[in-house]
Amino acid sequence: MNAAPEPVDSRANGRESLEAKLLRRLLASIGEPPLDFVFGWTGERVEARPGPAVATVRLADRATLVGLIADPQVRFGDAYSEGRIEIDGDLIELMNVVYRGAFVREEPIPQRIAGWVRRPRRNTLDGSRDNIHHHYDLGNDFYALWLGETMAYTCAYFPRADAGLDEAQVAKMDHVCRKLRLSANDSVVEAGCGWGGLALHIAGRYGAKVRAFNISKEQIAFARRRARELGLDGRVEFVEDDYRNIRGRYDVFVSVGMLEHVGVENYATLGRIARESIGASGRGLIHSIGRNRPGSLHPWIEKRIFPGAYPPSIGQMMQIFEPSDLSVLDVENLRLHYALTLRHWLRRYEASVDRVREMFDERLVRTWRLYLAGSVAAFETGVLQLFQVLFTGRENNELPLTREYVYAR
Amino acid sequence: MNAAPEPVDSRANGRESLEAKLLRRLLASIGEPPLDFVFGWTGERVEARPGPAVATVRLADRATLVGLIADPQVRFGDAYSEGRIEIDGDLIELMNVVYRGAFVREEPIPQRIAGWVRRPRRNTLDGSRDNIHHHYDLGNDFYALWLGETMAYTCAYFPRADAGLDEAQVAKMDHVCRKLRLSANDSVVEAGCGWGGLALHIAGRYGAKVRAFNISKEQIAFARRRARELGLDGRVEFVEDDYRNIRGRYDVFVSVGMLEHVGVENYATLGRIARESIGASGRGLIHSIGRNRPGSLHPWIEKRIFPGAYPPSIGQMMQIFEPSDLSVLDVENLRLHYALTLRHWLRRYEASVDRVREMFDERLVRTWRLYLAGSVAAFETGVLQLFQVLFTGRENNELPLTREYVYAR
Repeated sequence: MNAAPEPVDSRANGRESLEAKLLRRLLASIGEPPLDFVFGWTGERVEARPGPAVATVRLADRATLVGLIADPQVRFGDAYSEGRIEIDGDLIELMNVVYRGAFVREEPIPQRIAGWVRRPRRNTLDGSRDNIHHHYDLGNDFYALWLGETMAYTCAYFPRADAGLDEAQVAKMDHVCRKLRLSANDSVVEAGCGWGGLALHIAGRYGAKVRAFNISKEQIAFARRRARELGLDGRVEFVEDDYRNIRGRYDVFVSVGMLEHVGVENYATLGRIARESIGASGRGLIHSIGRNRPGSLHPWIEKRIFPGAYPPSIGQMMQIFEPSDLSVLDVENLRLHYALTLRHWLRRYEASVDRVREMFDERLVRTWRLYLAGSVAAFETGVLQLFQVLFTGRENNELPLTREYVYAR
Repeated sequence: MNAAPEPVDSRANGRESLEAKLLRRLLASIGEPPLDFVFGWTGERVEARPGPAVATVRLADRATLVGLIADPQVRFGDAYSEGRIEIDGDLIELMNVVYRGAFVREEPIPQRIAGWVRRPRRNTLDGSRDNIHHHYDLGNDFYALWLGETMAYTCAYFPRADAGLDEAQVAKMDHVCRKLRLSANDSVVEAGCGWGGLALHIAGRYGAKVRAFNISKEQIAFARRRARELGLDGRVEFVEDDYRNIRGRYDVFVSVGMLEHVGVENYATLGRIARESIGASGRGLIHSIGRNRPGSLHPWIEKRIFPGAYPPSIGQMMQIFEPSDLSVLDVENLRLHYALTLRHWLRRYEASVDRVREMFDERLVRTWRLYLAGSVAAFETGVLQLFQVLFTGRENNELPLTREYVYAR
């Protein structure tokens, strides 16, 4: 960091610079969040609104400001990653006020155009492999630093807000298994199994047989190793293949945290595969990040973190179930659980940040910090939701009348 | 009934009549359900398939058969109502095998055309009043014969399958109130309040203030009388008006069993009214009959029982919530509870059938018997579903993390 001149209020001498006025126009479009800005090249301080600010945003140079005005959603993240934006204050709180403010003015048509221009990369069989490789093959060691023992990279379930991360991840697996009433007699197919945590839990704890699909080579290798270590390789088969190649008949279809990568254009295919897997009498569960209404993932996240990812609305998710006449029995929104999960991840990430810097570089350190903090804010403000959908073939009348069985001790 | 000749198997003498062949073609299109048919005018018996039948269907005359072949869905019900079709055997079981069979061959395009031709009567402000009058103003006395003490004409909630009807109706009201975490501090607006049972329960049991809307004159008069009898008229206001005229701000929006009469074209309006009623921080619940996928109500039911009614898929229901950025927290499917509810109603109806005949005529007796029995079958076979959707304004982070609070004793 260069030594910067002491900040001077932008309105102190009666008139603001053109740069301050342009920034103000941008801030007005997101509801004037309680933030202060400091221009590193002049020392000018711009308060978005009078009164205390939750954070101060320092812009290193004029080019950063110009970029921010031209394309704030992508350029804010990139400039932060590059260290050309520095934050004094709590990053989550900053993202919270930005997200809340962005709702004040909703401009559906430009947003729709932006969504169209920034259409996610298509999830063809090859495209999916590239997209998944981009994200998940950063290396198991990287994720192991902050995901905890279960290596579950999906929303946990907190029986109490103060539960630990590992406890909450195991509780999530049990929550899924209880909803599905899994028993040792069941055969299960899992679409998108990550590092295999849920598949191993189903086999180890419930005694069911599992075939688990994933197209990430590194994750499959990790999961197979764990299965051998746990002596579960007789009951769990990890298949390095696309969910579209699932064949055969099972009692249960489960998919936790894959739908975000499927693409709405493939939902009917996913539903057909689920229906063919479980027939008219089986059970299934799909767990996914979602939204209150159709809309793209934040363009910076889509570009830098999750290429090809898209969080659907419930209405869009129904394009999985309706064409195949699957009965949706239960939809649960776990959005606040994901905010808690992400706070745990962010704390652990910060605790290992020196190791991340050694493995990669400062840019990646900052990119992932912003991604994790921004995601906490997205779930806390309702920009993102988390839906668990329990379903059956239409003729299944066997699940209990009430959901008390999920909560029975 | 005229004395009919002793039935003779249609294939007994080597070749079937043309009428039997035409009937067989119809039965093939619904999967050859295990039913026998007897033609009253010839004594011919037609078995849809070899082996035991769940019921025998007696057709009185050739015109009935011709009508059935031309337009089976409407003409079966009409002929049953007129006594030109008689059933030996269990009516619910008959409807069950017909519904199950109808799924064997799904013909989406003709069905879609039929849905278009038989588009439900539009629910304009005046149209709604006519439609609701048709059904609900048959008279409070009629419904009082079989709905039980609560006069709730919506799906009950059975904590146990053997719970009584009144107990299950009260449990339904409590289930709704618990999901919404109602307390005495809350103000509630109800859209479509029926005979006022839920509004009175909310006021009496939870101490909240309620404004309840309904366009049925007879129901509103009944509800106001009950409120006075219970000394609750200070806390509940019954308004004879359309839900589209709801104004003002409340903590909670609730609607149980009205959505079926709203029409998909009005869902966005309903959502806007809910959103304006509860703001960004309130809670709401909508309870409705639905379907696994878009499709019309059975055309005979729509024509004879519920003009203008339409059971939406979840995807269609989301047209309420998504445009207004409401957060859906919980969707519960209570389809089997409605089958149990309808079995209670049908039993009580049969116990009072002489009184119904005195009030109306044999035709109405038979129409409603078929409607109730057919509805049991529709919910048991998954032709119909029952969805309870809990939602909040986007900024509400106050509901408990888990749904255990709904089930806590």
